[in-house]
Amino acid sequence: MDQIVDFNPEDFDVTVQPGVTRKGLNHFLKDHGLWFPVDPGADASLCGMTATSASGTNAVRYGTMRENVLNTEIVLADGRIFCTAGNGRRSKKSSAGFNLTNLFVGSEGSLGFITKTTLKIYGIPEMMVSAVCAFPTVKAAVDVCVQVLQSNIPIARIELMDDVAMEMCNNHNKLDYEVAPTLFLEFHGTEESVKSQAKFAAEIADYNGGSQFRWAYETEERNRLWKARHDIYWTVLQSNPGCRAIVTDVCVPITCLPDLIAQTKSDIQQSGIIGPCLGHVGDGNFHTFLVFNPNKPEEFKKAENLASRMANRALDLNGTCTGEHGIGIGKMAYLEKEMGPLGIEIMKSIKRTLDPHWLMNPGKIFSSA
Amino acid sequence: MDQIVDFNPEDFDVTVQPGVTRKGLNHFLKDHGLWFPVDPGADASLCGMTATSASGTNAVRYGTMRENVLNTEIVLADGRIFCTAGNGRRSKKSSAGFNLTNLFVGSEGSLGFITKTTLKIYGIPEMMVSAVCAFPTVKAAVDVCVQVLQSNIPIARIELMDDVAMEMCNNHNKLDYEVAPTLFLEFHGTEESVKSQAKFAAEIADYNGGSQFRWAYETEERNRLWKARHDIYWTVLQSNPGCRAIVTDVCVPITCLPDLIAQTKSDIQQSGIIGPCLGHVGDGNFHTFLVFNPNKPEEFKKAENLASRMANRALDLNGTCTGEHGIGIGKMAYLEKEMGPLGIEIMKSIKRTLDPHWLMNPGKIFSSA
Repeated sequence: MDQIVDFNPEDFDVTVQPGVTRKGLNHFLKDHGLWFPVDPGADASLCGMTATSASGTNAVRYGTMRENVLNTEIVLADGRIFCTAGNGRRSKKSSAGFNLTNLFVGSEGSLGFITKTTLKIYGIPEMMVSAVCAFPTVKAAVDVCVQVLQSNIPIARIELMDDVAMEMCNNHNKLDYEVAPTLFLEFHGTEESVKSQAKFAAEIADYNGGSQFRWAYETEERNRLWKARHDIYWTVLQSNPGCRAIVTDVCVPITCLPDLIAQTKSDIQQSGIIGPCLGHVGDGNFHTFLVFNPNKPEEFKKAENLASRMANRALDLNGTCTGEHGIGIGKMAYLEKEMGPLGIEIMKSIKRTLDPHWLMNPGKIFSSA
Repeated sequence: MDQIVDFNPEDFDVTVQPGVTRKGLNHFLKDHGLWFPVDPGADASLCGMTATSASGTNAVRYGTMRENVLNTEIVLADGRIFCTAGNGRRSKKSSAGFNLTNLFVGSEGSLGFITKTTLKIYGIPEMMVSAVCAFPTVKAAVDVCVQVLQSNIPIARIELMDDVAMEMCNNHNKLDYEVAPTLFLEFHGTEESVKSQAKFAAEIADYNGGSQFRWAYETEERNRLWKARHDIYWTVLQSNPGCRAIVTDVCVPITCLPDLIAQTKSDIQQSGIIGPCLGHVGDGNFHTFLVFNPNKPEEFKKAENLASRMANRALDLNGTCTGEHGIGIGKMAYLEKEMGPLGIEIMKSIKRTLDPHWLMNPGKIFSSA
């Protein structure tokens, strides 16, 4: 089941089976001048990305899987097969009855198997330009993000890495970026529009105390820059041999990020644990990698406590315990706090309706029937 | 219940009660340099737009209500109240359990009352420019749309009106546009980026046999142009005194539009009915206004038959019987064809789970339990 089963370049849609990955699809699309922009970093299966409602660095412009799945084919618990938007349907919009597609996107396999996903695809922009810029504080970097969004610039990516993450990134990739809160930005469009967007963003950065922009115009240079950003998880592990990391994933209203990050960094420092911070700042989505030695249970406990306090802090700030990784087993308790008892009851009632014997991915999202 | 109950300009979100309309909200937001772009033409209630999954002319860039509702407050059939993304939550992204928000968006009041809706809002672009361009054929106009999307230009609106609609529009508004298939376009961004986008689009139009672009740079001029476009329903009725109109609303993959429109126009001509065509061509969404005299039942019958053939034609082209107007009472039969028996059964099972006594907006979407 690794086939691209339907491809309509001029309608900007493609339908794939579970074995097709993001990179595989983009390799295929490239020759047609097209791409699928949702990019969680890893080369994940597109049906898996559908099941977990993945997103990543391009979401600020192109949306998450929720905005990019047009239809899915589902095998229900009783073996019956149906398509969430109707068999073979692939119109860009629909208001025909309940939005079943988005009920299955992000359901983590707990309502049925996803055996096909139909995705929106996009023209490759004439020009893509990336830039890196350091700031005196996290607050200044977040202010830049807010002001860029206020000006309606269709920025493609706007990513934050803190001083700890930048230092690891420098050491591991032999780079020499400033060790400070740093924004990675990317602009897509025609040559003139990209230059205009970038100039506007650079003025905003300058106004907020940003250092000189470092630009990456060529594909190879851009790829190197984003590889450094995307490889940060492996960089963290290789910088701390023998260690593992708990990856956190909270999402809050953007203006809550500076306080949330400041509190989290202070909490991490007090714990003695190593924990670089980074975020999809345009979405208010923020990750830390909490490093622990698996042979030292007290370190794991510390990391777990840090992650727990971070999730609760995000929930207290009107945010979510998971911006893009899902609930799985680890976040069930936070889901209850996030949704409240009635929200959980409604989710469970839908689960029971579609999977009365609790067969699909049991023990995930909810602890019991 | 006509209050804006929460407003966070730097987080780009606002929460409103059912009495707040689109224009009322935008009047309030304007002083903050912000706006809510989903624009179905009418000055609808934002909770109503949430319930019907409304969209309109800006959807090609900003999405529909599905992409712009962050949370809703719901009163269930048994009187219990809950929030679909958790009480007070307003992060831009979440993958916390099932996407209940998008189950209620577009549910047409059949699962519960929407008593608050939390919306994404956007910075007002530095510059907005509109343009009008006529084409020899509908196919040429649709080709322009496909090529604009291929080039990844973040076009804000791209609307099609056919010769019949343009003639009525000219006569009613004392305008002198060419009577031919016509695109209305709009570009948003910084001054340089708008100019670059517009230049690029003009080249594509020229290549496809478009007439000279007619530009509208000033707000007043742009408003007049879009008012002519949005008032087309009233124009049609006033051009045919005493008559009423059936408004159709199908949505298909973009490349199917030329054939669908050609067949529909030929069908309309043969029937003797008046029926201007227009569409949100960037989404493949297409409307006709089928004019009938309410005192002539045979005219109503003809219009109904035309609408029915159009819906079935869209379904045969992998499309939907409703892009943005919903099922209501009139489209139940098409919904069954669109979703198939299992799709309908799943929708009904969710309805029964949340509203076991079938109290909420009974008789809509589905004919019976």
